[in-house]
Amino acid sequence: MGKTRLEAFSDGVIAIIITIMVLELKVPHGVILEALLPLGPVLLSYVLSFVYVGIYWNNHHHLLHAVQGVGGGVLWANLHLLFWLSLIPFVTGWMGENHFATVPVAAYGFILFMSSIAYILLVRCLTRHQRENRALAEAIGSDGKGRLSTVLYAAGIALALVHPWLGFAVYIGVALLWFIPDRRIEKRLA
Amino acid sequence: MGKTRLEAFSDGVIAIIITIMVLELKVPHGVILEALLPLGPVLLSYVLSFVYVGIYWNNHHHLLHAVQGVGGGVLWANLHLLFWLSLIPFVTGWMGENHFATVPVAAYGFILFMSSIAYILLVRCLTRHQRENRALAEAIGSDGKGRLSTVLYAAGIALALVHPWLGFAVYIGVALLWFIPDRRIEKRLA
Amino acid sequence: MGKTRLEAFSDGVIAIIITIMVLELKVPHGVILEALLPLGPVLLSYVLSFVYVGIYWNNHHHLLHAVQGVGGGVLWANLHLLFWLSLIPFVTGWMGENHFATVPVAAYGFILFMSSIAYILLVRCLTRHQRENRALAEAIGSDGKGRLSTVLYAAGIALALVHPWLGFAVYIGVALLWFIPDRRIEKRLA
Amino acid sequence: MGKTRLEAFSDGVIAIIITIMVLELKVPHGVILEALLPLGPVLLSYVLSFVYVGIYWNNHHHLLHAVQGVGGGVLWANLHLLFWLSLIPFVTGWMGENHFATVPVAAYGFILFMSSIAYILLVRCLTRHQRENRALAEAIGSDGKGRLSTVLYAAGIALALVHPWLGFAVYIGVALLWFIPDRRIEKRLA
Repeated sequence: MGKTRLEAFSDGVIAIIITIMVLELKVPHGVILEALLPLGPVLLSYVLSFVYVGIYWNNHHHLLHAVQGVGGGVLWANLHLLFWLSLIPFVTGWMGENHFATVPVAAYGFILFMSSIAYILLVRCLTRHQRENRALAEAIGSDGKGRLSTVLYAAGIALALVHPWLGFAVYIGVALLWFIPDRRIEKRLA
Repeated sequence: MGKTRLEAFSDGVIAIIITIMVLELKVPHGVILEALLPLGPVLLSYVLSFVYVGIYWNNHHHLLHAVQGVGGGVLWANLHLLFWLSLIPFVTGWMGENHFATVPVAAYGFILFMSSIAYILLVRCLTRHQRENRALAEAIGSDGKGRLSTVLYAAGIALALVHPWLGFAVYIGVALLWFIPDRRIEKRLA
Repeated sequence: MGKTRLEAFSDGVIAIIITIMVLELKVPHGVILEALLPLGPVLLSYVLSFVYVGIYWNNHHHLLHAVQGVGGGVLWANLHLLFWLSLIPFVTGWMGENHFATVPVAAYGFILFMSSIAYILLVRCLTRHQRENRALAEAIGSDGKGRLSTVLYAAGIALALVHPWLGFAVYIGVALLWFIPDRRIEKRLA
Repeated sequence: MGKTRLEAFSDGVIAIIITIMVLELKVPHGVILEALLPLGPVLLSYVLSFVYVGIYWNNHHHLLHAVQGVGGGVLWANLHLLFWLSLIPFVTGWMGENHFATVPVAAYGFILFMSSIAYILLVRCLTRHQRENRALAEAIGSDGKGRLSTVLYAAGIALALVHPWLGFAVYIGVALLWFIPDRRIEKRLA
């Protein structure tokens, strides 16, 4: 089965996720610059989530670029990933509107944690399921970066319980780690 | 006429339906974990609807994959299906926010019932209308699974009036029945 | 220049327009069937608008299907059409929530009127601008149906001022007129 | 790497941005024509933003049309542009709902200013990074129009602080300047 519609559908869902987050930025009633100040944390969490959804789109783009065909299992593994990503606007709003309180920051990390596991499952589904994706399997290798991120998200949640900014710092760190799209795939399949 | 734009438009509408449902998950005011508790039923109904819309997208994907061309009637049969699917976010919110009360659960079943009828009509429109889709017609056969679902949704509505959780259990059952994409089509046209 | 991205962008915008209208269907607080009664007019106006946006998508689909290339003017004529279509959710909500009061029904007709003019301008832009679309120009002919609709919308607005249901009846009539996609194009270019 | 998915994703995000702005047009409670009067400024700012997002889509369309392949850096430069565009609905609502008060008009100009810088960065990323885009680099030339716009936005922000309508007039002026898609690229690569 072709992958075109899978890509189109994923692009659509991710495009909506990345865009509806901005609806959390409620238009302020004041007309002076100070009216924007309470929006600071909301904007900050929006920026981080925009980068994260962008990272997922970039990696998803690279991943499926390297794939030749998709089976039924992949459709569900992909939907599973989209499900966790679809919860990012919710935790983004919760974290931002509560000025990075402990529990919302930990909840934000939990969604990142589940998304990273869903991504790892999608990669596995693509590599295991099909012989024609052997090139991808070799290119991905042991997927150390993906596993490291999952562990770091878990650490971020734990650190958020100590102090929310510690957890937030970890999330920024992982984002920087992924900022550059997966060169492993790019290099081997270029 | 080509089917590319029909697929693209359907992908767009289904992607929006599956994503705007998350807007019903209103950001809670509290910052403790208990603040999420009232969201439990909303999240539960969101998960079920996410799976259902995912099932429809998967089956729609498989169905149109097997089709070679579409006529004017198909465009309307497809829009008719999208209409009922577009009401899923509404009944999802109604059911979740009212903690699975009797009438909302029955209303949820009604939308699933109408969507399944719309899907059957779309399949008929595709198989009857065009000679080139004979392969599809043979692959679908008597479409027992589709008809069974429609009957089960009706039973679910009736059971919901006895006790809402009975209806809800039926909806989950049908979802599990459809979880695996339509292997009949996949097998014959692979 | 290719028309693929113009189609993709238009599909995206129209898919969002047709779907966000459902957000006007606010989840009711009651859990009895009567709680849905106040939603009756909103649902009725939603159905009509869903059909109208569907008609525009179908005709847009047929129109661009018959086109080989698009120039800069077409991009703007297309955006102009999308602008008026984007106001349909607004007048749909206004008309439905006010139980088909005079002014909202007339305003609804005004948006349909402007959309039909925008569609005529798009058709002209496509036929005049480019030699390669001569087949389209011949197929469209004098575009009597488009002009008739524009006149009928104007009549509908006037009749709405006498009694809103008269205007509403005219809008339904025009929708029925367009229900079948443009067979003129389909026949000649099939 | 292909550019198809980059175009599809950008089309999706821009389509959502241009459409969700209409959600700021809240359905009025009154049913007389005067009930629409307070919406005047909101509608005016909506029209300007619709034109601006349309301009960006048109130019983006032309720009990527002239490109053969995209690298990792382009994905991020593109996301950076989409980020600033995604804030347009927010400043549109703020400016319109406050009847073009000084600070919101200046903030609107700031988002246009940042978007124009993001667009220049995207153009640079496309021209510098890849040898195959030499045709594009030559076609763009020194990109005087892009730089002029950036300067004019800055001037508009300053003038808005003197009187908001002066700034608004500048934004309209720049929109008119860009109304016609980039003929430089169209001419050379036609």
